[in-house]
Amino acid sequence: MTDDRKMNGAESLVRSLSMGGVEVCFANPGTSEMQFVDALDRTRLMRCVLGLFEGVVSGAADGYARMAGKPAVTLLHLAPGLANAGANLHNARKARVPMLNLVGNHALRHLRYDAPLTADVEGAAAVFSDWVRTAETAGTIARDAIEGLAAAKGHPGRIATLIAPADIGWDEGGRISPPLPPQGPQPLDPQVIRSAVSALGPGTLILCGGTVLEDPDATRLLAGIARQTGAQLMAPNSTRRIERGAGRADIPRIPYPIDMALGRLSGFRRAILIEAQAPVAFFAYPDRPSLLLPQACEVIQLAGFDQDGRAAVEALADAIGARAIRPKDAPRPEAPQAGPLSDGPLSAAIASALPEGAIIVDESLTSGGEVEGLTAGAPPHSWLALTGGAIGIGPPLSIGAAIACPDRPVVALQADGSAMYTIQALWTQAREQLNITTVIFANKSYDLLKQELFNVGANPGPDALNMLDLRRPDLDFVALARGMGVPAARVECAAELHRILSAAIHEPGPFLIEAVL
Amino acid sequence: MTDDRKMNGAESLVRSLSMGGVEVCFANPGTSEMQFVDALDRTRLMRCVLGLFEGVVSGAADGYARMAGKPAVTLLHLAPGLANAGANLHNARKARVPMLNLVGNHALRHLRYDAPLTADVEGAAAVFSDWVRTAETAGTIARDAIEGLAAAKGHPGRIATLIAPADIGWDEGGRISPPLPPQGPQPLDPQVIRSAVSALGPGTLILCGGTVLEDPDATRLLAGIARQTGAQLMAPNSTRRIERGAGRADIPRIPYPIDMALGRLSGFRRAILIEAQAPVAFFAYPDRPSLLLPQACEVIQLAGFDQDGRAAVEALADAIGARAIRPKDAPRPEAPQAGPLSDGPLSAAIASALPEGAIIVDESLTSGGEVEGLTAGAPPHSWLALTGGAIGIGPPLSIGAAIACPDRPVVALQADGSAMYTIQALWTQAREQLNITTVIFANKSYDLLKQELFNVGANPGPDALNMLDLRRPDLDFVALARGMGVPAARVECAAELHRILSAAIHEPGPFLIEAVL
Repeated sequence: MTDDRKMNGAESLVRSLSMGGVEVCFANPGTSEMQFVDALDRTRLMRCVLGLFEGVVSGAADGYARMAGKPAVTLLHLAPGLANAGANLHNARKARVPMLNLVGNHALRHLRYDAPLTADVEGAAAVFSDWVRTAETAGTIARDAIEGLAAAKGHPGRIATLIAPADIGWDEGGRISPPLPPQGPQPLDPQVIRSAVSALGPGTLILCGGTVLEDPDATRLLAGIARQTGAQLMAPNSTRRIERGAGRADIPRIPYPIDMALGRLSGFRRAILIEAQAPVAFFAYPDRPSLLLPQACEVIQLAGFDQDGRAAVEALADAIGARAIRPKDAPRPEAPQAGPLSDGPLSAAIASALPEGAIIVDESLTSGGEVEGLTAGAPPHSWLALTGGAIGIGPPLSIGAAIACPDRPVVALQADGSAMYTIQALWTQAREQLNITTVIFANKSYDLLKQELFNVGANPGPDALNMLDLRRPDLDFVALARGMGVPAARVECAAELHRILSAAIHEPGPFLIEAVL
Repeated sequence: MTDDRKMNGAESLVRSLSMGGVEVCFANPGTSEMQFVDALDRTRLMRCVLGLFEGVVSGAADGYARMAGKPAVTLLHLAPGLANAGANLHNARKARVPMLNLVGNHALRHLRYDAPLTADVEGAAAVFSDWVRTAETAGTIARDAIEGLAAAKGHPGRIATLIAPADIGWDEGGRISPPLPPQGPQPLDPQVIRSAVSALGPGTLILCGGTVLEDPDATRLLAGIARQTGAQLMAPNSTRRIERGAGRADIPRIPYPIDMALGRLSGFRRAILIEAQAPVAFFAYPDRPSLLLPQACEVIQLAGFDQDGRAAVEALADAIGARAIRPKDAPRPEAPQAGPLSDGPLSAAIASALPEGAIIVDESLTSGGEVEGLTAGAPPHSWLALTGGAIGIGPPLSIGAAIACPDRPVVALQADGSAMYTIQALWTQAREQLNITTVIFANKSYDLLKQELFNVGANPGPDALNMLDLRRPDLDFVALARGMGVPAARVECAAELHRILSAAIHEPGPFLIEAVL
């Protein structure tokens, strides 16, 4: 029996998490985590993936969770390492994915002396975690980790962070802790179901997120409900994963730009929310509302984030006798002719190159153009979006998705400015030889912010434009990729983009295409 | 009068900070900071420097403060942006430099809706700040900023963070706020001075940090005290800035490795601390003490961080009649012969290339070799070290130092693994055409962690070594630099390193040398 062996706290933790189903550790360890590195090394129970920066680690764990449907463990170094992971922890938390972070801290006896790396690890953890605990003894750290794992795996998924003082990792007396069942979804309210059923009809929005969008059967059932009642289906803009493409219901996302979003939602008189919240603008603007639905719109929260959205869809369907339908597929786009990379040809080049089973990681922001629309008729694929608005998610999210699904190609649609926040991810893509093809939309500016500057009524002069401009010097993504071991090409023609992207998708290992807009 | 003009909150803040002496804004703004971008643009009162990642912004503000002796303002985007800045805020806080962070937040009316970017900005700020406030009205935000500025400029310097909800920036009613005097140092205790005077003698350590090491007159006076009494001088390992080189007292830093540090300090019976704390190990290890001085060593805190170290040095000198001396200079190293980049020739190549007035940014970690020793006799220069142990400080710290001192060349001694945390800084170095020459010590591993793994008693196998190894694929820093507009060269010969480094130092603009170890 493993629990009769003598082992230190770190080993008991690794063995217990492995028994709890954790298979991957994304790591950027430091001195205070060396005992965990040692335990991972001796037990060989997990695949260990190194990131050169902690934002790569947390973003990869998010991508893994979105596609594997279960958590990875991350290994992070003290408060500064946790802070570096923070932006993508934020995105993961808003995605409600399961994740367990293991963060080292100084040995308890060392904390009082204000060593250089001493800082408030608990405080840093609390900002971006749903569950935080500091381990206290070698004999209980595995139990702490298993409780954190169960918290992470609940419905919805949570970010759990366990802080591990170094001495608790290396002290003997570790004890294996068996898996704990996660908290399942809360029951639906029959009265709310009845209200939702009576609200179905023309002028009604069904806004669905979370597990519903990950299940093609659920969305086909929704399509049947919509056809029978005249209700319309939409998804939140910030959605962790949508299963879409040919043979699946096409559920459009609410657009990001405030005026487009208000326009799309202006006609609804009733909204039924399923694992989604009432849609809210990304930001407040001087003369715009925060809430995007019309003021008079009646809102019914059929299923909250902690309830079972698929059961809610089934309840609606049962009540009205609706059946799943396979909607008519959107036309499959054709490969574009030779010509510059304007919106249409660029999008067609990408959409026409997608094979069945592709995973699209979308951090294209302003440059995504018509890709989302044109891929509605592409072969079935998964679509992962930026969830928390913290840019720099794409390159690491791709890593995690590729590790969760080694047989599926990842196509990352990546804004150039955002890519630079976690550009180090390319190195991990190369080291792990992941089949990720990144298309950099090189518009050479923070275009989103230029739009936002106009939205707050400014008339930008040279200093403002300078702060939103990525030229002087131009970023050379081909050189950056090669510097991290990723082969790359620069493309200015739509037909060439199609050709190179198609080839890269079918080749193993990563590739980067700088699409010059 | 400016304060009679109609202006919004953002403009009142920018104008007030400018009147308070703030000249530089390091920025990575987002939507919620657009009104500050607009105000900076319209007033043109500050030099605005864009970083492509927030760790570049905070590290640059640290380097600027170390060399300018006054704060820059940073512009950061919500909790994720603040988190990304966190590791270098941590380093700056441990350096006790002055810095004022301006962090946008959602408009107050928008906060309740849990928009995608909503998170606990105050919590994120508290982890790495000494002073935190959230602005409440357009009429008081400038006053808040001026109070934050005064807090930052106190003795010692502090990290002040002002959170600015977007609507408070764009609302009219801004009011100029005049500068406030910062809090000066606390008085010295005459009784403690007398104790320190009687403790002077052989077997006594004078450990000095902070402002003392920045003042060659103070360190020459300390050299006189040491020579007269037989006391020995040392500096903390984590020191923000040391003025050193020919004509200046050579005050060695306590070494980083625990056993070396214990060895160097083992003979002391008394320690006098001046703007320094009792030395503590970076980390706890299973069989090592946390405190580095012998248990029986008597410790006298002559001046704390909040007291005037230079006045303490003068008080000691006055009491014993010591006078400043110009110590005998260490020999100036000669340029090395052609040959591989082993420790001695590598260090000689760098030390012999240094011109007068150079600023050395030291994040060399395990690869720094003998550079510090060999440069004791180099022409007078400033030495900036990693202060809080959060790696990734060097590339941005160099930016700030170069902007504070445009006529002085910056030579950055940079470990390869650490460089990758904030590699985006190279782009800002190119954009601003800063005279920074970065020498990458390419040992292709986290060597420090390999040592630490042995320190905790592990016997690393393949998974552990894999997590500490930066090969597979090799990082190509020449390609990375060129990808961000910085010319670069790879060097494997000591004589060539000397030649290329000397040329790069005397050329304007940045240059990167990958020194293959």
